[in-house]
Amino acid sequence: MTLHIRPALAEDAAAIWQILEPVIRAGETYALPRDMAEAAALAYWMGADKQTLVARDAQGRVVGTYYCRANQAGGGAHVANCGYVVAQDARGRGVARAMAEDSLVRARDSGFAAMQFNFVVASNTGAVALWQKLGFAIVGRVPHAFDHPVLGLTDALVMHRAL
Amino acid sequence: MTLHIRPALAEDAAAIWQILEPVIRAGETYALPRDMAEAAALAYWMGADKQTLVARDAQGRVVGTYYCRANQAGGGAHVANCGYVVAQDARGRGVARAMAEDSLVRARDSGFAAMQFNFVVASNTGAVALWQKLGFAIVGRVPHAFDHPVLGLTDALVMHRAL
Repeated sequence: MTLHIRPALAEDAAAIWQILEPVIRAGETYALPRDMAEAAALAYWMGADKQTLVARDAQGRVVGTYYCRANQAGGGAHVANCGYVVAQDARGRGVARAMAEDSLVRARDSGFAAMQFNFVVASNTGAVALWQKLGFAIVGRVPHAFDHPVLGLTDALVMHRAL
Repeated sequence: MTLHIRPALAEDAAAIWQILEPVIRAGETYALPRDMAEAAALAYWMGADKQTLVARDAQGRVVGTYYCRANQAGGGAHVANCGYVVAQDARGRGVARAMAEDSLVRARDSGFAAMQFNFVVASNTGAVALWQKLGFAIVGRVPHAFDHPVLGLTDALVMHRAL
């Protein structure tokens, strides 16, 4: 699958919401309100504190989106934090991996020294395995930090890698 | 030291800023910009997403302040997150401990099931020891997550306890 990844434009908002909505409604991977409205979700995902990108396939269709930002301010501003979502009908085709690899390069180019994921739901084993393949280590495990709508109380992982 | 802890009022803002300013300027414990302006700092500390409290001594002087909020939204909203600052000239008199104990009670009363600190600078050994005495466990250690102005790159700890 050939992917083109570029910064999101205002005109991508509808496509981004199409991707975000089922993930937010399912409530299984992101700690966001399951009833979050479109405007609030887009304000979060495309907020001024973030760089937001879209991955488009050869037909120009947006099949994934991610954001990056500084994980902390001040003395923590050298560490990047990103979040990724793949369109449901584009899963299993390497979109997440391509976006993650793209984000690592962009974060390094932007001067970040490391990347951290603060809240990887432990039951999201596909994501955990992918991050580990990409060099991330599990540096923290918060017991029962996430109330999964199907599985109940689930651990959340903190993952990290240097850039 | 007899302390009275109550929700902060708008009129406490000047006293809160007096306590926050030297801590922010020092940049050794909070991941906030060292040059953060008063208005931005107060908007952060007393933000709508937080409950902010002040600890006053027997003379009514504000000697400490803390905030609590949900650490995450959605499936993570059952975990509280708090931050504490003690006035420089009131250190070593149990103010931090009193505020922490107060926050644990209030968080439990508010229905939170646990409390998590996301970013305890590892060199802040007094805080780490106090949290451990109060039942918090170190559940994560992010390498070099904080650029300490004196010590350089320092780990940050994730700490957690059930309520």
